Amino acid sequence: MRGLMQEWPLLCHTIIDHAARNHPDRRIATRSVEGPIVSTTYGAVRQRALKVAQRLAGMSIRAGDRVGTLAWNTARHMEVWYGITGVGAIYHTVNPRLFHDQITYIINHAEDRLLFLDLNFVEQVEKLAETLKTVEAFIVLTDRENMPDTSLKNAICYEDWVTGADGDFAWVEVDENAGCGICYTSGTTGHPKGVVYSHRSNVLHALSVNMADFFGCSVKDVVMPVVPMFHANGWSLAFSAPMAGSEMVMPGRNLDGESLCSLINEFGVTMSAGVPTVWLGLQHYLQETGKKMPSLRRLVIGGSAVPFSSIRFFEEEQDAHVLHAWGMTEMSPIGTFGSLKPEYAALPREERYAVQTKQGHSLYTVEMKITDDDGNRLPWDGKTFGRLKCKGPAVAKAYFKGEGGEVLDAEGFFDTGDVATIDENGYMNITDRAKDVIKSGGEWISSIELENLAVGHPDVAEAAVIGLHHPKWDERPLLVIVAKDGKSPAKEDILGFMTDKVAKWWLPDDIVFVDEIPPTATGKIQKTELRKQFADYTLPTVDGPR
Amino acid sequence: MRGLMQEWPLLCHTIIDHAARNHPDRRIATRSVEGPIVSTTYGAVRQRALKVAQRLAGMSIRAGDRVGTLAWNTARHMEVWYGITGVGAIYHTVNPRLFHDQITYIINHAEDRLLFLDLNFVEQVEKLAETLKTVEAFIVLTDRENMPDTSLKNAICYEDWVTGADGDFAWVEVDENAGCGICYTSGTTGHPKGVVYSHRSNVLHALSVNMADFFGCSVKDVVMPVVPMFHANGWSLAFSAPMAGSEMVMPGRNLDGESLCSLINEFGVTMSAGVPTVWLGLQHYLQETGKKMPSLRRLVIGGSAVPFSSIRFFEEEQDAHVLHAWGMTEMSPIGTFGSLKPEYAALPREERYAVQTKQGHSLYTVEMKITDDDGNRLPWDGKTFGRLKCKGPAVAKAYFKGEGGEVLDAEGFFDTGDVATIDENGYMNITDRAKDVIKSGGEWISSIELENLAVGHPDVAEAAVIGLHHPKWDERPLLVIVAKDGKSPAKEDILGFMTDKVAKWWLPDDIVFVDEIPPTATGKIQKTELRKQFADYTLPTVDGPR
Repeated sequence: MRGLMQEWPLLCHTIIDHAARNHPDRRIATRSVEGPIVSTTYGAVRQRALKVAQRLAGMSIRAGDRVGTLAWNTARHMEVWYGITGVGAIYHTVNPRLFHDQITYIINHAEDRLLFLDLNFVEQVEKLAETLKTVEAFIVLTDRENMPDTSLKNAICYEDWVTGADGDFAWVEVDENAGCGICYTSGTTGHPKGVVYSHRSNVLHALSVNMADFFGCSVKDVVMPVVPMFHANGWSLAFSAPMAGSEMVMPGRNLDGESLCSLINEFGVTMSAGVPTVWLGLQHYLQETGKKMPSLRRLVIGGSAVPFSSIRFFEEEQDAHVLHAWGMTEMSPIGTFGSLKPEYAALPREERYAVQTKQGHSLYTVEMKITDDDGNRLPWDGKTFGRLKCKGPAVAKAYFKGEGGEVLDAEGFFDTGDVATIDENGYMNITDRAKDVIKSGGEWISSIELENLAVGHPDVAEAAVIGLHHPKWDERPLLVIVAKDGKSPAKEDILGFMTDKVAKWWLPDDIVFVDEIPPTATGKIQKTELRKQFADYTLPTVDGPR
Repeated sequence: MRGLMQEWPLLCHTIIDHAARNHPDRRIATRSVEGPIVSTTYGAVRQRALKVAQRLAGMSIRAGDRVGTLAWNTARHMEVWYGITGVGAIYHTVNPRLFHDQITYIINHAEDRLLFLDLNFVEQVEKLAETLKTVEAFIVLTDRENMPDTSLKNAICYEDWVTGADGDFAWVEVDENAGCGICYTSGTTGHPKGVVYSHRSNVLHALSVNMADFFGCSVKDVVMPVVPMFHANGWSLAFSAPMAGSEMVMPGRNLDGESLCSLINEFGVTMSAGVPTVWLGLQHYLQETGKKMPSLRRLVIGGSAVPFSSIRFFEEEQDAHVLHAWGMTEMSPIGTFGSLKPEYAALPREERYAVQTKQGHSLYTVEMKITDDDGNRLPWDGKTFGRLKCKGPAVAKAYFKGEGGEVLDAEGFFDTGDVATIDENGYMNITDRAKDVIKSGGEWISSIELENLAVGHPDVAEAAVIGLHHPKWDERPLLVIVAKDGKSPAKEDILGFMTDKVAKWWLPDDIVFVDEIPPTATGKIQKTELRKQFADYTLPTVDGPR
């Protein structure tokens, strides 16, 4: 027997419709790529999104077609998203920081028919244009006055294109499970793989992450999405903020401390979200200038681990509550928030901050489990760690065009590639990447914990731990160290420092000193390089006692 | 092209699963119907709900079967709901305040196969038992010690029944559009009609109403649902609170001021929700005793208009923010909340309270429109009033078994039967019931506004306005007045008082004085009776000038 409730499919246009109907004059301020700060409203964004959809329909863009965007966070970018989804097509956000051949690869792989791009990416795209096989036209997100001379074929000035439409158009209704957005994720090996969001997943994710202990957007909030829309579905803020009728501030391309601080104070930003490096830049700027940001109440930090010192700074010096968010492109993207449960609220400050560095508890729409290598569920005791796997309506079940093959386990969970503990209160803490964890005699050793411990030694500048083959234990840890300038600590000294701080069987079997640990483009340790470098290294414990 | 996100149907059991997984030890305290305050946890509620489901399956209750509950707000009632929906069956909440023949009617109409009932309803049900054609067994929500002798056939002691199951049971997976709950709504004419919620509508409604400007339940909240679960789907709190992991306090059967105040202070309740009469009782108790409720931050009031004086009392004397909610059984039930937008936050206090008495802005999942009698949309200007119609995934499209026929208009909107204005900011204000509005010369006159105006006269105790037939204007208002004891105001005096306070053509064509205006069971004016009484009354303006 079916319920007798209305059919009302979960489509993205309902979000901007709601905002325009109920919050028509609510402001969206943008620091434009051209320079000046410009303002618009939800009413105007919806009207222009309808014009975008009308224009796209006029260029025979149909449901399911992919349309690329290479753009910063601006109101224009947002109206383009709603225009694309409103004609049933699929926005494909291209990350301008990818290598050129990766950009070519993903645009060709997605078969983008059009590419919207910000002014400052014109030169970059001109160099690639010949390699982009499917792009029929390039729409430059600017007005006639700022439109550059360009070698791009079929270059279109966005403002002329939009304002020429009359907006007499109705959203194209599609099934709520239809594709709506694509974001490519760059694995450590092979080509980037496309994650395909549906209307349903975007709407459910936006609803779920809008609950009080997560983004909790309110009509009284002024929300500044600093995380770019091209990064992991823009963390859903282009959906969550309009759904709540929040005022928005779009920072454009300038994400330095001074630019962000001035926007926060000019518009009274109450909530913002971005990656740690951006907030470190803001923190340094505030520390140098002694400035305050009295309006800011919630600062969401995600993408990588939050430094303890940043939590302390924003909580104590700026009276802003720091919320650590964890997610993945494959999860639309939010999985958990390190928001405080009542169990932790009464903790002394420093212990509370330690809880806030954890990845935290999951959205209602995210089921988590941790498993051993055989897929058996492990206990939630805050100590046992296992592969973290997730399930939910906004979690990927496959990649575009089947790349990467089957990605779900027998119970339908997606393997995040992370290794984590979960405590009795459902609080998750990532301890390692699955590929970096060291498997010793059937038990797991966290490379990250050992690295964090080693850099605590006064003479150690950098540390990396990799697992090397061991005939008896399968793998054992090798600790690779860069000493501080002028220091040359002894192996025994460092081992002595680490002893008693971890289980004895976690202690590395050997320590080697190097001049440099190869970094990745984003500053993380490139363990694949280290593994190659030490591929033939024989641990002293091989054939020896342990 | 479909998205590549996981299938994860929106089923009610995912809510209690989430709570039990992530908030296993969070407390649900209940003032039991037997007397003592008892406590349980989400972990235990889920485990017992699984046992309920297992027992129901053992009694051959199958997907789509209806199971009645006649019970107060208790943890037991909540675990029964989850047990019923978890076996794919449909909870049918029976309102014990209905007349006996209405209770018989709805239980027979729903074809309830079982009836769960609280201890204190046993006597009442014994009297009805013979008329209940479909009920195979009566499960009394108590333990062996308190189990009464009863003439009910197949009477079962709940605790024995539940604890005898081992809980080794998996939720029955059904389509998310499957029926999940029924609540009957009593119209002014004819039999009550059944509204059939689906799993999808309950989950989407709970998500949507959990946004910050509505219930906004947090893991840090202690939520006390005072509105009974048998009233309009319990305002969704049995879903919304566990979805957020909030602590809960269930007040059982005692809803007097003293009982509620003691629960609020004993458990540190932060948010509660109920109808105005209950909060008036609490207000009087607090005023008499001078007690405070320091933990209470949000008080949600709905079901009928909120008295201005109550808003002032709770805001100023108790430092609790009053949120006026509007909804209907047919809307799962929440439609709007009078939460403050930034436009209103800066208003002087009294003006702000006036905004808070309005019905307010809609959930993301509720679309509203106001129309004239021909179904044309009317402007959102805060002045024009029209029939209020709603659309959304948790709004009814029909009643059970087709009672009442077609209820949606050509655009798929449900007619609420209310007449309202909506302002430029999407703020809705109900001005009348559609059946009470007076249609004069194609324009509408609000009976409620005229009544409110008339009772402002110092000699008027009660006032009611009804429309009487008029050959030229179709309808014209008749004002019916009960004077205050010892007063006998003149017609001209009252008309003079009203003049200049409303448009001239709104003024009543005549005034009659009566000793009593017939009230309904719930204390509202019974206009149907008044219309009968004055059916043959001829207005002095008939054939006269206007």
